[in-house]
Amino acid sequence: MNTSFENLEVGYDSPAVPGMDAADVQTPCLVVDLDALERNIARMQAFADEMGVRLRVHGKMHKCAELALKQIAAGACGICCQKVSEAESFVRAGIKDVLISNQVCEAAKVDRLAKLAGTARMIVCVDEAANIADLSTAAQKRGSTIEVLVEIDCGAGRCGVRYGQPVVDLAKAIEEAACLTFSGLQGYQGPAQHIYGYEERKATIGEAIRQVRKTVELLKGEGLECAIVGGGGTGSYYFEGKSGVYNELQCGSYAFMDAEYQRVKGEDGRFISEFENALFILTSVMSHAKPDKAVCDAGLKVLSVDSGLPVIFGRNDVTYVKCSDEHGEIADPDGVLRINDKLKLIPGHIDPTCNLHDWYVCVREGKVEMLWSVTARGKAY
Amino acid sequence: MNTSFENLEVGYDSPAVPGMDAADVQTPCLVVDLDALERNIARMQAFADEMGVRLRVHGKMHKCAELALKQIAAGACGICCQKVSEAESFVRAGIKDVLISNQVCEAAKVDRLAKLAGTARMIVCVDEAANIADLSTAAQKRGSTIEVLVEIDCGAGRCGVRYGQPVVDLAKAIEEAACLTFSGLQGYQGPAQHIYGYEERKATIGEAIRQVRKTVELLKGEGLECAIVGGGGTGSYYFEGKSGVYNELQCGSYAFMDAEYQRVKGEDGRFISEFENALFILTSVMSHAKPDKAVCDAGLKVLSVDSGLPVIFGRNDVTYVKCSDEHGEIADPDGVLRINDKLKLIPGHIDPTCNLHDWYVCVREGKVEMLWSVTARGKAY
Repeated sequence: MNTSFENLEVGYDSPAVPGMDAADVQTPCLVVDLDALERNIARMQAFADEMGVRLRVHGKMHKCAELALKQIAAGACGICCQKVSEAESFVRAGIKDVLISNQVCEAAKVDRLAKLAGTARMIVCVDEAANIADLSTAAQKRGSTIEVLVEIDCGAGRCGVRYGQPVVDLAKAIEEAACLTFSGLQGYQGPAQHIYGYEERKATIGEAIRQVRKTVELLKGEGLECAIVGGGGTGSYYFEGKSGVYNELQCGSYAFMDAEYQRVKGEDGRFISEFENALFILTSVMSHAKPDKAVCDAGLKVLSVDSGLPVIFGRNDVTYVKCSDEHGEIADPDGVLRINDKLKLIPGHIDPTCNLHDWYVCVREGKVEMLWSVTARGKAY
Repeated sequence: MNTSFENLEVGYDSPAVPGMDAADVQTPCLVVDLDALERNIARMQAFADEMGVRLRVHGKMHKCAELALKQIAAGACGICCQKVSEAESFVRAGIKDVLISNQVCEAAKVDRLAKLAGTARMIVCVDEAANIADLSTAAQKRGSTIEVLVEIDCGAGRCGVRYGQPVVDLAKAIEEAACLTFSGLQGYQGPAQHIYGYEERKATIGEAIRQVRKTVELLKGEGLECAIVGGGGTGSYYFEGKSGVYNELQCGSYAFMDAEYQRVKGEDGRFISEFENALFILTSVMSHAKPDKAVCDAGLKVLSVDSGLPVIFGRNDVTYVKCSDEHGEIADPDGVLRINDKLKLIPGHIDPTCNLHDWYVCVREGKVEMLWSVTARGKAY
């Protein structure tokens, strides 16, 4: 144990210090199983390598510069994120290749993006013509070049234009704009990631691939090459990866996993379970005034319930049944829990859960190895 | 405008700077209507004064030291919060009277609480005997005195013991423990705050009041006086305040209000609406590729949907209909919205929404007057 850490105080500033026993970590907090995380990172990179596509890991999930650098060291080509302020966090940490897989429209944000493009390779998505003009003006002012993808709405029904000619029109406008480079397509089918049945998910992603393929061919006919055809996530990466048309995957959740993604079934019922739970909300029992109900210290301020309640890891005897601001209610029919017992919760939805915390407490073999800052926490603008 | 602010950069570190036009604030962020906030603070304080009870404002809602100090300056006797790390934030900011309206059980947290009690008046809740012994040991070690309330489960079904004799037993144990003071009762009926119908809510709170009154009398018979009988919230404060037995109210949401609390009806359908919306999530339209659907930049990472989706303030023509990590989908049947249009969202549930943000952008008469830090953001341990 590094003696310089001995004077660090556990509590106000962080829930743990390196070197301490994992059993002494203050709750509630995020705990990373480093061994499981490293296996997940290696596995997804191996899948991408086998399929001959790049892996551009999604930083919006973990918002952590240290983790992104670890994924890049393992072979990822760079990262994606969703906001300019996230990109600023990652570029400050030394990451050189960043896709904002989203639209950036406000004048001040467009300017910040153009400024960042002077430091790192910056790629952004567009779905309307006026935005292209704004990006070009800002890049000229900052003396930088911004790479631009046209976003196709390939079934998610949110941002993005229809495949085919509308994409070609925007691609041409990008090519003609000063200080912008047309770099390809963004074709991410978000809702399809969460279709639990394999065949239905395959069919839905298959339609997205068809639209993207058709558009790539149309662009090619117009002399426009797509350096990047990006999309895919933890629930679908094998479809896009093997499509022959996508060349960059944008997986995020695989690194930590969550309860929602574990409901998504592979062809043989096993695909998703190849990734392990590597991230937990550590919580303590803090009240047990009723014989069959324990109350723990993890509520809405440390976990997101938009995709359902958390699942208690490794326990079949107790169940997390209700969530309020600072409390979780746990059904304990046999009264096995005691005050200060610790439980590991698998979050329902990992992205908004990580965004609630300042620290990842990284644990290996029962000891806290280090803490990682959630570098881009709250960076939403 | 203070020229020292002119060099502050809007963006990475904060969504606004003092002096700028409210129209230029970066989105998404929390915007406070200072005039409305000040009216809400004055109104609730006037209600408490009229009823002859103390107002101990709940800091768990806003987690903001500046705002708590403003509420204390307006007459509040102190604050409550839910976690030791929150209390540390508020005590560091100079607040001298803090109730942790929750159990504190972990050894390290108990010690931190005992340490804080050397600086400020610290009050905490208990619902089991072993915890009393631990608090006493820690206070003796730190040379401080901790005030202790016994929490009654007066209908919420979460923490707290049954009213009557179980409370007396714990109160006596507190009285006998070195360096602890028995200071009274915590009787907060949380779920009842959100019973929309007035009569049903009145009956439910009435039962809580009955239990608390009976226990206060029982304690009195044993020679144990309750300096504090605390509870009540924005949905019920007038019941506890007029009960003659409660002497401290613990209201939080009234200062900002949210969509959920505005569904709670008063006797005349007006009570709750006496408090105004003073807190909004400012958001921008960032995509409008479909004629009848706009996409804004406020999703799960800037608002909590546990109590329903946000409501768009002052607009009947557009509706927030779907939320994903970084996006909100807005039904815009007449296609009235344009890219970069700004909208003010009333959060569904204010407490977990505020906890997502680092800053309150405080606005008056169209100008940013100041930024307040969400001092205790993420302080969950």
